[in-house]
This record gives sequence, C-alpha cells and structure tokens, in this order.
Amino acid sequence: MSEYNGIIERYRERLPIGAGTRIVSLCEGGTPLLRLHHIPALLGKDIALYVKYEGLNPTGSFKDRGMTMAVTKAVEEGSRAILCASTGNTSASAAAYAARAGIRAFVLIPEGKIALGKLAQAVLHGALVMQIQGNFDVGMRLVKDVAVRLPVTLVNSVNPYRLEGQKTAAFEVIEALGRAPDFHCLPVGNAGNITAYWMGYREYHRHGLVEGLPRMCGFQASGAAPFVRGHPIDHPETVATAIRIGHPQSWDLALRAQAESGGWFDELSDPEILAAQRLLAEQEGIFCEPASAASLAGAMRDVQRGKIPEGSLVVCTLTGHGLKDPDIAIAQSSAPPLKIEARLAEVERVIAGEIGS
Amino acid sequence: MSEYNGIIERYRERLPIGAGTRIVSLCEGGTPLLRLHHIPALLGKDIALYVKYEGLNPTGSFKDRGMTMAVTKAVEEGSRAILCASTGNTSASAAAYAARAGIRAFVLIPEGKIALGKLAQAVLHGALVMQIQGNFDVGMRLVKDVAVRLPVTLVNSVNPYRLEGQKTAAFEVIEALGRAPDFHCLPVGNAGNITAYWMGYREYHRHGLVEGLPRMCGFQASGAAPFVRGHPIDHPETVATAIRIGHPQSWDLALRAQAESGGWFDELSDPEILAAQRLLAEQEGIFCEPASAASLAGAMRDVQRGKIPEGSLVVCTLTGHGLKDPDIAIAQSSAPPLKIEARLAEVERVIAGEIGS
Repeated sequence: MSEYNGIIERYRERLPIGAGTRIVSLCEGGTPLLRLHHIPALLGKDIALYVKYEGLNPTGSFKDRGMTMAVTKAVEEGSRAILCASTGNTSASAAAYAARAGIRAFVLIPEGKIALGKLAQAVLHGALVMQIQGNFDVGMRLVKDVAVRLPVTLVNSVNPYRLEGQKTAAFEVIEALGRAPDFHCLPVGNAGNITAYWMGYREYHRHGLVEGLPRMCGFQASGAAPFVRGHPIDHPETVATAIRIGHPQSWDLALRAQAESGGWFDELSDPEILAAQRLLAEQEGIFCEPASAASLAGAMRDVQRGKIPEGSLVVCTLTGHGLKDPDIAIAQSSAPPLKIEARLAEVERVIAGEIGS
Repeated sequence: MSEYNGIIERYRERLPIGAGTRIVSLCEGGTPLLRLHHIPALLGKDIALYVKYEGLNPTGSFKDRGMTMAVTKAVEEGSRAILCASTGNTSASAAAYAARAGIRAFVLIPEGKIALGKLAQAVLHGALVMQIQGNFDVGMRLVKDVAVRLPVTLVNSVNPYRLEGQKTAAFEVIEALGRAPDFHCLPVGNAGNITAYWMGYREYHRHGLVEGLPRMCGFQASGAAPFVRGHPIDHPETVATAIRIGHPQSWDLALRAQAESGGWFDELSDPEILAAQRLLAEQEGIFCEPASAASLAGAMRDVQRGKIPEGSLVVCTLTGHGLKDPDIAIAQSSAPPLKIEARLAEVERVIAGEIGS
C-alpha cells in the first residue's frame, strides 16, 4: 500500500509521460472497489454488485485521476496557469493540483448551483473563482474561447490528458476483480468518464490483459438527459449538480462507448437518485454525492427488471464523496438529531426504547 | 493497489482477530504519506516534512482504522448495537461501520458544536443521533454509564480494539519511509491517536522491523489544552471542534507516549491553527479539517525555532478531511467567488489582469 504514489507512477508505461517528467501528484487513484452485501439481498437477486468509491481520491472525486495528468503535462509544457469550467468537482481538483504545482488556477462555476464543499475547496486552494450568471454549458463555451486567447491551459475533459488519467480506474477494476465486469454503470454529465473507462477497458483487452469487456451503461438525471433525449438540452435541471449538464463535451466518444460495448443510456428522476444515495449510506455505510448515486439507482432498476440478468457482475462508479454536498444529505434525512438533556436516565430511556431492552 | 482490502486483512497477524472472524471493513487505511515541497522552502529550513493524509479514509477521518476493529469485534461478540460520544468524526465512522455490519448505532454529540459534514454523515448512515445539552466530556461520561447498563458496545477509544486498529497508521508510515521519522506530530484531543501511533512504532521496533523511534509531539488548541496545563479543563473552547476536549480519556497512555519517546506537548492559538490549514491548502493542495492543522502548525513553529533541528524527518498526521467542515474554510477565505457576467470580454479581462497578459 504505502509504496503507492498515484496513478502516473503506477501506470506510467500506459500514459503519455516522459522519463524525466516532474509528476504533480496528490497520490490519487488506488480507490476501493467495495462489494455490496445488503442491497443485492434487498433486491432478492443473485447479483455480484460492486462500487468503485472514487470519493476517496484526494479532493473527493474521480477528477483527480485526470487532473494529475493534465497539470503534470501543463507544467511540463511551461504553462503557469490552468483554467476550467466546472459544476464543482473539476474546479476543486484543478485548484488543488495547481496549488501542488505552484501555478495559478482560474475556475468558472455556475451561479448558485454548486455544492458547498466544492466551493470551499476551490476557494481555500487559492483558485480565482468566477461565478458566472449562467450554467455549466455557458461556462464551458467561455473557457474554450478564453483558452485560445490567453496563455492558460484548459483542463476540462476536452484536454486529452484528462481522459488518459481517468482510464486508469478501469485498469484498477480489472486488477481488483481479476476480470472485467459484465456491466459497468456510471453517472453521465459531461460524458468524459464513461469515455475514459471504455478507453481503459479496451486498452487492457487489446493487450490481452483481460478477456471480456463490460457493457457500458450511462445514467442521467431526467432533467439533464441529453443522451436519452438524443440531443443537447438547453436548460438542464437536477438536484445532482455534478451532472447538471445539457451539452456534454464528449458526445461522440460516449455514444461510441455505449454502442461498441452493447450498453445503454437511461434516465432517473431526482427522487430515485436521492433514494439510492440514502439506501447506500444506510445499508452499506458508503456516502456518495447525489450524482454518484445515479449509477447505483440505474443498476438497481435494471437488475430488478431483468435487463441486467442474474449471475452478472456489476460495477457502479461512485464519482464523488457525500461530504462534497452535506446540505443535501441533511435535507433528505428521515431522522434529524434528537435534542435531549444531558442526563443518564434520559439517554438510557431513548436507547432502551430503540433496542427493546 | 487494488488487491488492498483494509487494515485488518493487511495487518491481520498484528491484530487480535481470529481466523474465522467476519471482517467489517470499508477498505480503510492505506492512506497517502505526502511530502510537502513548498512549505519547507517557505520556512527556509532543510527539513523533510511529510503529512499522513488520514482524511482519505472512507468516512474522511482516521477514526475508521479503529472502527473497523471495534465493529468487527462487536459483531463477533454478538452485539447488535454500538454507542459513542463524539465531536463528530467518531460518530460518522461508527454510523458508517454499523450500517456496513447491519447493526444499530447510537451517538451522542455536543449541541451546536459539530461540523456540518460530520452531522450529515451520522444522520444519513442511519444512526440515532442524540444532541445533548453539554460538551464532549459530558457525553463521554454518559455513554460510559449507559454502556454498563444496556446491551450496547461502547466504541469510543476506551474500547481497546480502537487503538489496536489505529496503530496500523504507524506501520504504514514506517513502510512508506523505510524507516521511522525523527518526529511525529499529532493533534491531541481525546489522546487516543498519539497513544495508538506510539503502540505501533514500538511494536515494529520491538520486532526488529525498524531501528529508530520518533519523538511524539502532541499539539492542542490553547482553549482546550489539558496536557499543556497539566490538568483537565472543564470548559474547552476552540474552532478546531474535533479536539475540543478537556478530559482526555487516554490521559496516562498519552503522557507515557510523550515521555518515553522524548517528545512534548504544546499549544496553538485558533488563528495559528487556521493559518496552517490555509497554508497547506494554498501551498500544497491538501485540504484538512482545522484540528488536523494543529499538527502542522506545531511542527512549523518548532522547526522555525530550532526545537526540531534541520536535517530531521518529520511526519504530521492530518486526522480528517477539510470537507468535514466546509463552513470554516469558506469563512476564513481571503478571496470569495467573484460574481461576473457570462461574457467572454469579462472573463478575459479578469484573467488577463491576473496573469499580466
């Protein structure tokens, strides 16, 4: 374990990194692949269900895998500043890796639609945070334009190094399982991650490191489901702010991942997404952000209706930690804290009542 | 990496775990040991300074190392419920591991003095959260009394399995460095962690797995510094809520760790702690909660005044992730988000002004 130093060192020969390159890393990757016990039992289905807990990356989301690559290459190429549009996770990661590298970070975030934790991260890591009057898609158009006019490196997933870094999550899944899953379920917003996983699976497959390939299943929030609708959406809306994106940047690549793998796109309502977030926390002890739970919500529904057959091995990527968005968790809680007097009799009465003692 | 399955499987032969015991794990441990680059340069001192980033445990704090042990043993012994008092991190961890095990968790937290993220965790993981009119020390007395009267297992660090699990962090430090550090700096609240690290260091030393031993340096907040004062404190106060403890449960053991190792206890003001939190985020890209930063603040001061001599290898434990307490981060930020119009000229103007382009 402890000799692990991040994805670039671990997968150097599979990444476009020179021998002398100075690596900018926070020891990202190497995240747990956890098998779920209680949820398959609740579903009453014979299914091997795993989650890839990407919330345990340094800044709390999968973005760090791509950012270590993007920032390492930016520094190698002499850049002194990076730039991104973000629903929050990308800006947190960009800000942290820029700090680690000793360069500047500029981030554009949508006004009033960003989780508290993510904003705190970008700000505390010293990024210049611009909150625009517009959504992520508007911000994305702006940063692409700015990046061609000023000496700043764009680190959104249109930066090819981002996907190169992110593909390493597929390598880790294969190594942990000793095989490829039958189905790999992901939340889909900007669509870079489903693209990157498919790159990773195909790469190991091409080199004979794994026999099978998973079907790639992308799940979107109903209010922000361009892949399900078949066209971009101008005014995406969902409580799952990390996938509140209507004009995905990796449109063609994600469609190809779905089609080549024999997978599918589907949508979930906000209540279905939040219910899955809560179920995972209550039944398995795993806390993810709302967007992440879209993958599990989709997998559960498709297992239940037999679209994912019994006997399958299914992996769901949990893209970000639940601590990114604590307000959502508290808002949807069924049991808020019980305020009681600090007396033994009082505490004993409450607990005894609960355990029937 | 990916074959890693948590501290019990990794260090089974060094833990009181039987061959047939069902392990309750969320894949805790295996956290990064990150070398700091910019802060030693700012100090102008020749020092090898590392942080052990325990915020990357599943629930975002070092508590998970002890909780996997405490809950595994509780379940083995037939317990159906666990109980703790907590400033927040222990309750988050207890709630998550109880959910993973399929048993109940009861937690007592102080009223109005708990970080938002930690409360969200305990609640969403389905614990029964009792917020008492009193501080942590009052809660600690209550749970000790309740645990002898009801069939619930106490999982505070007075539970000996907790420290057994936590000692594994010292094993990881030794393995990552290939040696013991010269100084190991920790924030000290309830004093279980400094005790556990010293157990771990001594164990590897006793078995000839490492030659040296570090000096153990414990840092407290000035308003909650019983070890510095030499006696318990009745009304502890600090912004670093995780160490807002006046009556540490591991008093004798922590004193022994300090004395045997030739280390020391010292105190830091709240502003010093928050400044270290911010410096670490801005200069190194690492986000920890306020209490965690006490270790770094103490180490920096002792390096600067020569108490920690140049040429030393120093490890600071960062006990929890900054996402645990996003409000603090935003409150102390120097540069809040800049609200701007979503126009190219506007974004370009701001960035060009910053980079002098």
